[in-house]
Amino acid sequence: MRDTTDLDQDMMQALARLAVRVGLNLQPEQELVMTAPTSALPLARAITAEAYRAGAKLVTPVFSDAEIARARYIHGQDAAFDHAPGWLYDGMAQAYDAGAARLALVGEDPFLLSDQDSAQVGRANRANATAYRPALSHIAEFRINWSIIACPTLAWAARIFPDLPAAEALARLAASVASTARLDQDDPVSAWASHNAGLARRCAMLNAARFDTLHFTGAGTDLRVGLAEGHFWQGGATQARNGVICNPNIPTEEVFTTPHAARVDGVVRATKPLSHHGTLIEGIEMRFEGGRAVSATATRGQDVLSQMIGTDEGAARLGEVALVPHSSPVSQCGHLFYNTLFDENAASHIAMGQCYASCLEGDDLSPDAIAARGGNSSLIHVDWMIGDGRTNVDGLRTGADPVPLMRAGEWMI
Amino acid sequence: MRDTTDLDQDMMQALARLAVRVGLNLQPEQELVMTAPTSALPLARAITAEAYRAGAKLVTPVFSDAEIARARYIHGQDAAFDHAPGWLYDGMAQAYDAGAARLALVGEDPFLLSDQDSAQVGRANRANATAYRPALSHIAEFRINWSIIACPTLAWAARIFPDLPAAEALARLAASVASTARLDQDDPVSAWASHNAGLARRCAMLNAARFDTLHFTGAGTDLRVGLAEGHFWQGGATQARNGVICNPNIPTEEVFTTPHAARVDGVVRATKPLSHHGTLIEGIEMRFEGGRAVSATATRGQDVLSQMIGTDEGAARLGEVALVPHSSPVSQCGHLFYNTLFDENAASHIAMGQCYASCLEGDDLSPDAIAARGGNSSLIHVDWMIGDGRTNVDGLRTGADPVPLMRAGEWMI
Repeated sequence: MRDTTDLDQDMMQALARLAVRVGLNLQPEQELVMTAPTSALPLARAITAEAYRAGAKLVTPVFSDAEIARARYIHGQDAAFDHAPGWLYDGMAQAYDAGAARLALVGEDPFLLSDQDSAQVGRANRANATAYRPALSHIAEFRINWSIIACPTLAWAARIFPDLPAAEALARLAASVASTARLDQDDPVSAWASHNAGLARRCAMLNAARFDTLHFTGAGTDLRVGLAEGHFWQGGATQARNGVICNPNIPTEEVFTTPHAARVDGVVRATKPLSHHGTLIEGIEMRFEGGRAVSATATRGQDVLSQMIGTDEGAARLGEVALVPHSSPVSQCGHLFYNTLFDENAASHIAMGQCYASCLEGDDLSPDAIAARGGNSSLIHVDWMIGDGRTNVDGLRTGADPVPLMRAGEWMI
Repeated sequence: MRDTTDLDQDMMQALARLAVRVGLNLQPEQELVMTAPTSALPLARAITAEAYRAGAKLVTPVFSDAEIARARYIHGQDAAFDHAPGWLYDGMAQAYDAGAARLALVGEDPFLLSDQDSAQVGRANRANATAYRPALSHIAEFRINWSIIACPTLAWAARIFPDLPAAEALARLAASVASTARLDQDDPVSAWASHNAGLARRCAMLNAARFDTLHFTGAGTDLRVGLAEGHFWQGGATQARNGVICNPNIPTEEVFTTPHAARVDGVVRATKPLSHHGTLIEGIEMRFEGGRAVSATATRGQDVLSQMIGTDEGAARLGEVALVPHSSPVSQCGHLFYNTLFDENAASHIAMGQCYASCLEGDDLSPDAIAARGGNSSLIHVDWMIGDGRTNVDGLRTGADPVPLMRAGEWMI
């Protein structure tokens, strides 16, 4: 592919090794299902070779293509947008049932469909989400080891660096992907082991401390975020139910948990723009009372912001709070990626909408049980960045002194 | 893809139109499953656009990749070669069950795996064939409309024209693919309608005539090929069981039927080399007695030829006889394609091995019933060319004069 053939071959090899050995931790004789855009073909090939070197039984790529995806909107009949390739997703579910690991290579144009009919995009997304549910459950419930990793592509790079020549934009993005994947370290696999240990240590400390509230202060921010009852901190490597410890996201810099939907109070100002459905929302400020955003303003994209938090009752409440140091390699890149895999790892953030049940203690909680603990529910889950180099975070617990967790954006624990 | 982006866009459009309108005859609101090598991406994109213009509900590409296929042989564990992506084939079968049409885009390097361990290739092929059987049955039994069409690629062109520079080889192959697809006619879709009508007329004449033997004469050839009892001639467009008339092969120039496994006598000399499992077999001569090849020699590739016809009892007998005029556009290209889709349409030919039950009257015939009619059975089915500009073919029937079917390689009917 013209998109990426000029990328440094050493980087491709290093990224492939990281995807297979750290992201997936692929096991000998395990099958691998790899979804990828056609523009990531060179990395898909490098990953395939590495997976076979790791003892894979079979690697099956499932390629998507930007132009083929767009062709439907340009040439397709309107009646067709409620249909999805359920047969392919059912096949993938069958593979996961039989023990296959799953790698998602991403790197598409983040605004691929932003010029298309938003009603058709919405219908196609809904049809896909419904058809994909059986396959997704294997992933969401961690029945298998899985991972998401990005390939730098021309189309993506052009969105991030629209003023640079194509080759230069791609080189800049490749450098950012390399540094956020810790490929600039002597031994990236060891670097991730050590990084995972740091995240695990902080999760253990936070889980032991059982704070009931986090207190964020910073420029324009003074926010108390109550935590759900029986909340559980997560971050970094995860042991899937098949026993394999994988890194589901590369990069990942966050530790995160579930806030209490009724106990968020104060003001908070965004530290980075939010890219939402193809629109950039800048200068967000919100005031929370009793868990609810009672005011939400933006210097740009106010309409989209208002529409977003008006989606449903839970859309104006928090479903996630995550701590990320300002020195995060993603933050150090100094640019947005327009991809949550990266952008949510640039700064401490909160998310409007749906909470993660996996961040609550106890298995198979009912929706009522989740709500009773303070877990929020909504059709949306939208992260936005509230941390930077001036951010302080304290852990509060009734009857105890505040514990400094972050000072000037950096970990104190 | 570098492979084909330099191909003429008009040709891509014309080939796409032919694939969708003639090959598949895709119906409004029909889903399409399209397998393709990544090197055929530009044609896959053009076909997708055309399929949506024809009213497709959804087009789902399933890409394979030469380098990913080879990686298994280079880096994979030996124990892994008995495994196939059954989940993907089962998914495809599910799509066909639900009414999807199927397009196979071909154009891979014809010798892709010829340097790899032949035992591993054989095991992988067997595993694939077994896993693919449920999906294949929809195609073999024409439950859906389907088609195979080729995309010119650099890797394929380099095998056909090894002495030409890459771009020139690709241009030569593209010209050959265009002429064999009748893209050089004013309206290729009409040209195929007229071509199909000619093939249908000849099949109807041959089916009405009920010859019991064909008599081939030519340079080094004097061969009588008995036809199976209740044989049935086929060629060109086919009506699938879903009612849609499709052209399963583009190009196709042959009319073909099932010979009688015990009634083939005389000598026959090949008119073109046979490419078999990566070996070129040249100068084939065979003598048949009572249906069986009692001698089979070649000036090159004798070992491979002997091994092939020694595969099983049926491998030394005929499973197909096909008539193709010497003026066939494929023949006029003047080169081998190393792909049966093309090469079998260059000349009248016979095939060693398994017969087609669909070329016998009556549905759902048992293996015993097929054998009783004279239908051959074998693990192999290998076509080789016996026609050229000197070939005469007569239809013989007891108690009637011979009917000239071909003279100097051309149709007389």
